[in-house]
Amino acid sequence: MPSRPQPTAQVAAVPAVTPFVAPEELARRAGRDSLLRLGANESAFGPSPKAIAAMQAGVPHTSWYGDPESMELRTALAVHHVCAIENIVIGSGIDDLMSLLVRTFCTPGDVSLATRGTYPTWTYHVAAYGAQLATAEPTAAAAVDVDALIAQAAIVKPKVVYVANPDNPSGAFVPAAELARLRAGLADDVLLAIDEAYADFVPAGALPPDRIEPGTIRLRTFSKAYGLAGARAGYAIADAAHIAVFQKIRQHFGVNRTAQIGALAALGDQDFARSVIAEVAAGREEYYELGRRLGSRTLPSATNFVCFEIGSRAQAETMVATLLECGVFVRKPYAPPIDGFIRVTVGTPAERAAFAAIFAEALERVREKAPA
Amino acid sequence: MPSRPQPTAQVAAVPAVTPFVAPEELARRAGRDSLLRLGANESAFGPSPKAIAAMQAGVPHTSWYGDPESMELRTALAVHHVCAIENIVIGSGIDDLMSLLVRTFCTPGDVSLATRGTYPTWTYHVAAYGAQLATAEPTAAAAVDVDALIAQAAIVKPKVVYVANPDNPSGAFVPAAELARLRAGLADDVLLAIDEAYADFVPAGALPPDRIEPGTIRLRTFSKAYGLAGARAGYAIADAAHIAVFQKIRQHFGVNRTAQIGALAALGDQDFARSVIAEVAAGREEYYELGRRLGSRTLPSATNFVCFEIGSRAQAETMVATLLECGVFVRKPYAPPIDGFIRVTVGTPAERAAFAAIFAEALERVREKAPA
Repeated sequence: MPSRPQPTAQVAAVPAVTPFVAPEELARRAGRDSLLRLGANESAFGPSPKAIAAMQAGVPHTSWYGDPESMELRTALAVHHVCAIENIVIGSGIDDLMSLLVRTFCTPGDVSLATRGTYPTWTYHVAAYGAQLATAEPTAAAAVDVDALIAQAAIVKPKVVYVANPDNPSGAFVPAAELARLRAGLADDVLLAIDEAYADFVPAGALPPDRIEPGTIRLRTFSKAYGLAGARAGYAIADAAHIAVFQKIRQHFGVNRTAQIGALAALGDQDFARSVIAEVAAGREEYYELGRRLGSRTLPSATNFVCFEIGSRAQAETMVATLLECGVFVRKPYAPPIDGFIRVTVGTPAERAAFAAIFAEALERVREKAPA
Repeated sequence: MPSRPQPTAQVAAVPAVTPFVAPEELARRAGRDSLLRLGANESAFGPSPKAIAAMQAGVPHTSWYGDPESMELRTALAVHHVCAIENIVIGSGIDDLMSLLVRTFCTPGDVSLATRGTYPTWTYHVAAYGAQLATAEPTAAAAVDVDALIAQAAIVKPKVVYVANPDNPSGAFVPAAELARLRAGLADDVLLAIDEAYADFVPAGALPPDRIEPGTIRLRTFSKAYGLAGARAGYAIADAAHIAVFQKIRQHFGVNRTAQIGALAALGDQDFARSVIAEVAAGREEYYELGRRLGSRTLPSATNFVCFEIGSRAQAETMVATLLECGVFVRKPYAPPIDGFIRVTVGTPAERAAFAAIFAEALERVREKAPA
């Protein structure tokens, strides 16, 4: 008999993986008080001033639980997405909803299919529930390859196919028609989970229409264009039957009260959201131009970040470390064909200028050390 | 073949239960803008002014993720509880940690043992993971019966024994020596989970010492004495090996950034916490006196709420509904021997006075309708 309580065999078998090391921890390691935060795709433009004011006004009532049904927020989102409130569940960020999704649809041993190299937190949750991750190859440009996913799904029989659209870390976008082709190419009992964390940065006409389908769950967040990453407010849009299942097992009181207030105010300030999206588009162009100027190839991005090619995987890793030494926090894609790139969030004009200067110098140093 | 994605058999079998209907929803049903909130054991005394100021100052940076390691908060908590940071994990409230705990230690079909009638969210999570809840009878005063738990554990062989101490909804407290006797009476491989949500209201000397034991996990929250229920910040104190397991499967970015700031400031303002605890103690005495005056028996409480006896279960339910009609939100224990009671949070002096007047009148109406 064991002499102390033991985790279940399934949980014991989960590998110890930390999805992301935080900038706070990196700053501690680098002996710095703070870093230029261009590594977590947070919004450099902050939350809407209206959201800030609403949250600050709400703070004295932090002694009250938030509404576990997030009724006001769901009502506003239902209007925004032209669906019923029964089609929406709020979670404490997309990560929370991913966990709920894997837990709901995957028994230990079940397969989830995703594009190799995509958002590692999906992989984290798949592993944490003892499910298996199967991967399809990305395109040569590190984008989602719909044909590869369909072909692989026919072989590995996944319960859930995960697609980040736009993709993170590549920034690539799958147009609506391609996505419809993916859905049509999967069996009806396969769930298509579309992570739309960065969808607000996609031109409106290019996105799939706001339609509820029984085979598709879409995940959205207030963390990116709305500038509320620290609030932890995300939502799933899905068939009411799926939402009803989540209702049976979710954390009802899990969403912070002030976050609900902030999300509602942010959603109501579309003018601000549009200004952020325009700023980000301008910043992406500036990054592309910077890449051209420095001879670092960039990937076309439909998000608030851009990937810059450094060289080999080792060189890209050196670049991340070099930038950190200079007080700049960036991350890098972990898988080929873009593991020789770094991923840089679009900052404010001042942050972009600071990054451009430091990056130019760091690139010289890295190239000197180990020519490509 | 099913024509749409299906949840796993385990999740499909979970009953559709909503742990608590929120006051916002009750207000909507009652056609009111707001209610006198005495039903969720939120702190009527709000967060510390220092925590409010710190959170308001932090709000503009909501665009940044919170530190996924909550390093500052864990460091302060380690000092507070005289342990290592490796003994502490932060979650988005105790509910989040309960979910993690059941998930970690209970395979579907495994048994968790608790006192019949205790905090229903534990039951919710046990059911949501397909585990089984076994119960031991409470004492005649609805308190935890250590002997009954030990005897029942020997029969049902639980993976986890759950004890809320002080208990919710009864308010009863198990002294340190009794708790030590419970631990000693359980097999070494049985986990004892002690929910200490209300422990801050217990006189310091009466609490078990801050000691890390491999067989015990303690759950704490900033929701009650610290007045941060809406923030969603709780923590588990446990053996480093258990914390390391949670680290493998938890939501790393799940805790709101402003909540971390608020919790840290609240923890640092022990003067304010002490003043709240003293106010609550005075309010409890006032409630006991109110009960004596109105001929409604009260249960001795070590928390920020008091249970008042109404009569039969039906009468207590009528009382909850009657109070709601009068704009007062309270809840009631769901299980004998105290299902004929209502549970009332200690409010501010003004809220207590308002409650006393409304309760006196409502008690007459309920007694007239159906004499006990």
